[in-house]
Amino acid sequence: MTQAGVGDNAQKLYAIIPAGGAGTRLWPLSRADAPKFLADLTGTGRTLLQGTLARLTPLTTGESVVVTGTKHANSVAAQLPELGDDRLIVEPSPRDSMAAIGLATAIIAQRHGDVVVGSFAADHLIRDESAFHTAVREAMSVACEGYVVTIGITPTEPATGFGYIHEGVTIDGFPTAKKVDSFLEKPDASTAKQYVASGEYRWNAGMFIAKTSVLLAALASYEPELAVGIEEIARAWDTPERASVLERVWPQLKKIAIDHAIAEPLAADGGVAVVPVEMGWSDVGDYASLREVQASGGDVVVGVAPNGAEQSVYALDAPGALVYTHSKPVVVLGVPHAVVVESDGVIFVTTTDQAQNVKSVVDALPENVR
Amino acid sequence: MTQAGVGDNAQKLYAIIPAGGAGTRLWPLSRADAPKFLADLTGTGRTLLQGTLARLTPLTTGESVVVTGTKHANSVAAQLPELGDDRLIVEPSPRDSMAAIGLATAIIAQRHGDVVVGSFAADHLIRDESAFHTAVREAMSVACEGYVVTIGITPTEPATGFGYIHEGVTIDGFPTAKKVDSFLEKPDASTAKQYVASGEYRWNAGMFIAKTSVLLAALASYEPELAVGIEEIARAWDTPERASVLERVWPQLKKIAIDHAIAEPLAADGGVAVVPVEMGWSDVGDYASLREVQASGGDVVVGVAPNGAEQSVYALDAPGALVYTHSKPVVVLGVPHAVVVESDGVIFVTTTDQAQNVKSVVDALPENVR
Repeated sequence: MTQAGVGDNAQKLYAIIPAGGAGTRLWPLSRADAPKFLADLTGTGRTLLQGTLARLTPLTTGESVVVTGTKHANSVAAQLPELGDDRLIVEPSPRDSMAAIGLATAIIAQRHGDVVVGSFAADHLIRDESAFHTAVREAMSVACEGYVVTIGITPTEPATGFGYIHEGVTIDGFPTAKKVDSFLEKPDASTAKQYVASGEYRWNAGMFIAKTSVLLAALASYEPELAVGIEEIARAWDTPERASVLERVWPQLKKIAIDHAIAEPLAADGGVAVVPVEMGWSDVGDYASLREVQASGGDVVVGVAPNGAEQSVYALDAPGALVYTHSKPVVVLGVPHAVVVESDGVIFVTTTDQAQNVKSVVDALPENVR
Repeated sequence: MTQAGVGDNAQKLYAIIPAGGAGTRLWPLSRADAPKFLADLTGTGRTLLQGTLARLTPLTTGESVVVTGTKHANSVAAQLPELGDDRLIVEPSPRDSMAAIGLATAIIAQRHGDVVVGSFAADHLIRDESAFHTAVREAMSVACEGYVVTIGITPTEPATGFGYIHEGVTIDGFPTAKKVDSFLEKPDASTAKQYVASGEYRWNAGMFIAKTSVLLAALASYEPELAVGIEEIARAWDTPERASVLERVWPQLKKIAIDHAIAEPLAADGGVAVVPVEMGWSDVGDYASLREVQASGGDVVVGVAPNGAEQSVYALDAPGALVYTHSKPVVVLGVPHAVVVESDGVIFVTTTDQAQNVKSVVDALPENVR
């Protein structure tokens, strides 16, 4: 790989937005059949998916693609009519993130040549969009030098719910970029504290920026069989053969996350960079983080449950409460950090302290309640 | 007053059941337009009102009366069709307990002569009905000696939510009856502790047993103007003049509780007795006491909200929870002693620790939510 200055970033980004994941820890606001990326959880007037695309617009070509499953394809198309048929990539079944991002990358490469792609989850929030844009622009420049580049979030606390990125040596010629030494799995509490104290670790937010040629070469190198399948589907994508090739090849693709397929082995080979950033990022992964990102703030935060009308909420001695109501007013008395969600089919009562336990409770519920 | 043995209790009781009071501390299970005496809060298959009448049946003549307001007269008649028109006394407007009990007593005296009446609230629960019957039978015997007799509940804790009765000297010739030294208002916590430690105090459950002649004479003595008005209405009750006399006289009656009108001054004059009893009594006055009297017990108690269908409730790490749901399943996670009530118009979330604070919160709600 060669070095280059930051002047190369006039190039535009081709964004890939994988829209999947049930977000069970936000049940019943987020459910398998109504995942959080389709919901406006923070009262901004747009869903997390719509917000993700809008946030990328200043960086992109107007050729961004969304990858989603058959179950939610209609909802995604309705929320983002501008995608049309060309830019909505529908997976016949879930094959994990490498197949989704790999296929989107191969299709973009076929349509547009050796351009820079960037993959960003559909259900995260970023408070400081300007910092995000600056970081992605630097990542694009670094990507032009042949790296797969990730955005590393400077930790605000020793979180145990995220993977971490261990930074290596500085890459000359860029404001902040460093090589990635290694990717670490979600740590336990004491390990997380050590990571944060050292100042050498960032949260892995699953954002990857790379030239199509670099990403596809890495895929071919580390997962050659998967690469062959993806290339075959991509070649057929914009032809009448798409359906038949998809039907034949897709179910055979290896289920593997992009982190394991490319990021980890390539980092070990010195081919991954990280651009660190503080930008008020949240994966809105549970009720505690949803409470934190609520723009309205105040003692009690009131959200409108998906498909619900605005309702009154009254609270006393319930600081930090978070209430989403669908059809009825809610009164909360003396339950600090209460979480109350009325959805179409259920009433859920907990506290933000229980944020990490929601998933296991929901998994144990009978299907008709879940 | 003369003394007599317990052999006089062959006489039957004419029970008076005042059915009023919104029970705001059980909101929204109990509301001004749907008070708790009309609800089956404990899943017994009958409402508190129906339970009260049934509990008295072994003691009574079949001539018991219920006194209620115009607002709930139809509901009471529907729940107790056996009352007919004769035994349902409908107050045109609330004039407090002395007018209600006084009028019922005067009507009974006019119909049946000098008999023993007993007044019992429509919205209490008593676990040990046998102990209740024994106590009331002794009270009837004592009443025949010319006393106004109350049933004093042996305290199980230094409650601050009830008035107390200070016992005086033993009345010879009865198993447990004593003179009442005085009635005390609801005490503060340290006073309540002293009361309970002394062993000389009982809770005032608002039950009064007396001969009609004794009760009406006391009324004439301590509240002569009120007595005149009540006697005038009673004389007209079973005549075509009832409506016109009621309309003219009732609004003029003094609003005063029977405790202040009769019990306190008569106790000072040595005319009130108390029969102490342990009988698992509860006024079901708030969510803490409702939780305690729930027959089903267990970690989580599930009730069916009035007019609701049975729904599933799932709870984890929520010992002592109390859930009433109307139309949807409820899931509770990590809120010990949670109280969750879904009613027709509102969802209420609190804990039993907040039982005493419910009223003030409800009073502050806008009318359409309340």
